[in-house]
Amino acid sequence: MTSPEKFTGWIGHDKESTKGNLKWEEFTPKTFADTDIDIKISHCGICGSDCHTLRSGWGPTHYPICVGHEIIGHVVRVGKSVTRFQVGERVGVGAQAGSCLRDDCEECSNGRENHCLKMVGTYNGKYADGSRSSGGYANYTRVPAHFAVKVPQAISSADAAPMMCGGITVYAPLKKNGAGPGKRIGIVGVGGLGHFGVLFAKALGCDKVVGISRSQSKEKDVLAMGADTYIATSEDKDWKKKHANSLDLIISTVSSPDMPLDGYLRLLRTNGQFIQVGAPEDKMPAIPAFALIAKGCKIGGSMIGAPHEIEEMLRFAAEKKVKPVIQQRRMEDANQAVVDMEAGKARYRYVLVNADHNDHARL
Amino acid sequence: MTSPEKFTGWIGHDKESTKGNLKWEEFTPKTFADTDIDIKISHCGICGSDCHTLRSGWGPTHYPICVGHEIIGHVVRVGKSVTRFQVGERVGVGAQAGSCLRDDCEECSNGRENHCLKMVGTYNGKYADGSRSSGGYANYTRVPAHFAVKVPQAISSADAAPMMCGGITVYAPLKKNGAGPGKRIGIVGVGGLGHFGVLFAKALGCDKVVGISRSQSKEKDVLAMGADTYIATSEDKDWKKKHANSLDLIISTVSSPDMPLDGYLRLLRTNGQFIQVGAPEDKMPAIPAFALIAKGCKIGGSMIGAPHEIEEMLRFAAEKKVKPVIQQRRMEDANQAVVDMEAGKARYRYVLVNADHNDHARL
Repeated sequence: MTSPEKFTGWIGHDKESTKGNLKWEEFTPKTFADTDIDIKISHCGICGSDCHTLRSGWGPTHYPICVGHEIIGHVVRVGKSVTRFQVGERVGVGAQAGSCLRDDCEECSNGRENHCLKMVGTYNGKYADGSRSSGGYANYTRVPAHFAVKVPQAISSADAAPMMCGGITVYAPLKKNGAGPGKRIGIVGVGGLGHFGVLFAKALGCDKVVGISRSQSKEKDVLAMGADTYIATSEDKDWKKKHANSLDLIISTVSSPDMPLDGYLRLLRTNGQFIQVGAPEDKMPAIPAFALIAKGCKIGGSMIGAPHEIEEMLRFAAEKKVKPVIQQRRMEDANQAVVDMEAGKARYRYVLVNADHNDHARL
Repeated sequence: MTSPEKFTGWIGHDKESTKGNLKWEEFTPKTFADTDIDIKISHCGICGSDCHTLRSGWGPTHYPICVGHEIIGHVVRVGKSVTRFQVGERVGVGAQAGSCLRDDCEECSNGRENHCLKMVGTYNGKYADGSRSSGGYANYTRVPAHFAVKVPQAISSADAAPMMCGGITVYAPLKKNGAGPGKRIGIVGVGGLGHFGVLFAKALGCDKVVGISRSQSKEKDVLAMGADTYIATSEDKDWKKKHANSLDLIISTVSSPDMPLDGYLRLLRTNGQFIQVGAPEDKMPAIPAFALIAKGCKIGGSMIGAPHEIEEMLRFAAEKKVKPVIQQRRMEDANQAVVDMEAGKARYRYVLVNADHNDHARL
């Protein structure tokens, strides 16, 4: 196995890229460093971030761009300084492909690479050498080995892919904020991230897991995923009162800034926490300080996870048999899959599959 | 010693009560219960809450009202069921004078009486029997013994008074959020609460304590209290950038909703926390979720403290010789003291003194 000089992937050229305008084109990967590995991509999940970035929703995107940061594949080339991986191994790459990794960096040296000020996103990022990062809607990707993780055998590549960003984004704040026995957890928004929230909260042994969404349309699915209760905020006008003071921790995966934050805070118990992981393109609603003071509550944010947290999540998912609900799409149909993703049709995560790279593709 | 049937205090009758309109009048205390004690008041701090309440700033106040919830005095009557106190003992009462105290209350049975849904404020509150609660701008007060604490001998009554609300309001969130060696703390607003923040953060052994205020006027005082650095936000236009990523925990004691919250969040390091304890009469500024997500930060609130936390604070203050900066005012001058408090003249806490109740008054 080896990798070509140029890679080929779905390239977005402008803000209209989520509307079926991606082009399958060659691109130049980052300059190969001794610390890098090349990965022949078999699977790549479609994450909400891909869409935000393709349409410059979080600020100007650096076009042309190849997105995708829920990547699974096999190692095909290993840099001279890399000892952790061998050619042929199955690995995953999430939303981060770089950081300073210096010993004197307080984040990198303390297992918080995802908060390093020199953090490089897996796409739309720039490495220290000036190369641009490129994502997984492609045949190959090249990343610093530090940011790749091995995938336990018990997890299929298609299932592992969406864990690399969607999974870790909710797993990390659940773990950090004490989700487990004795705790009652709410998950706001039950899409790609939210469905992982329900699955992981349940697998962590929480006393109660509540799916919270606008409409009732996903209720059956969410209960089937293991949730104990479901709240449809736009269909039950008494939801704020009825479920007041019932949750210890809420993970909010929605990225619309138009959220009933006051109501979510009412659902919290004393010392409860509301952690936002979906990133709205605008500000969150203003809230009265009393809402936080009276119950000693907190509103926080959490961003993906460090490599060691991703490894921990994969071990946990393998052990507890956490199985995401996914729909596999052909890599060649990426444009339609993105259009469907934007239309909210994913149930609950699309995974692009490079059929020719993947012995087990069942499309 | 005993207590009269009616007590006498400074009574506010309407929203204009902070403008020198309090009347020294008799009022009827709560109906005496076997679980109550009567206290002959020697000192009462003037808290910002008194002013907010006198002018109905936090919503309609129940007039007539006697405010004051930083009360120190001596026990003069003890209910039949009370075993913790004896006549003659020196005690303090803070901002809370009641809660359900039921064994099946998750808050009261877990040392979080201050978050009980049946919480009764020391003034402007209503007990289960329908009696109204009355504060400490008075000659006597009557409270359920559970909410009184003994005052260590090492702390003078004048110093202990403002700890009962101002002190515990900042001590509790400092302790809960890990203030101590290795941590860098910012205190926003250096008035009554904020000056306690600087004193306690320093006494807790924090690596660095930073006073943050609008103007430079208090810099010298704040450094004298033990702060290592002082930031004047309206006089240093580069403050957000210059001090970015420098603090682990910020306690915000200001009650103006017009705060540069975005700037305060920039000051936080990864996983930093911003805890609001001052209660604005309006909403806090809206913030972008990214500000919380990118650094894994949290914004929280904290409200006073439970009786066991007040006792812990008093022991700590006695041991570490924490001495607030106060100005003693005669109880008969309460009107002028409130006017001065509203004008921002307190340096840093006014304490009303009932000279005839207090052997050691030095006015």
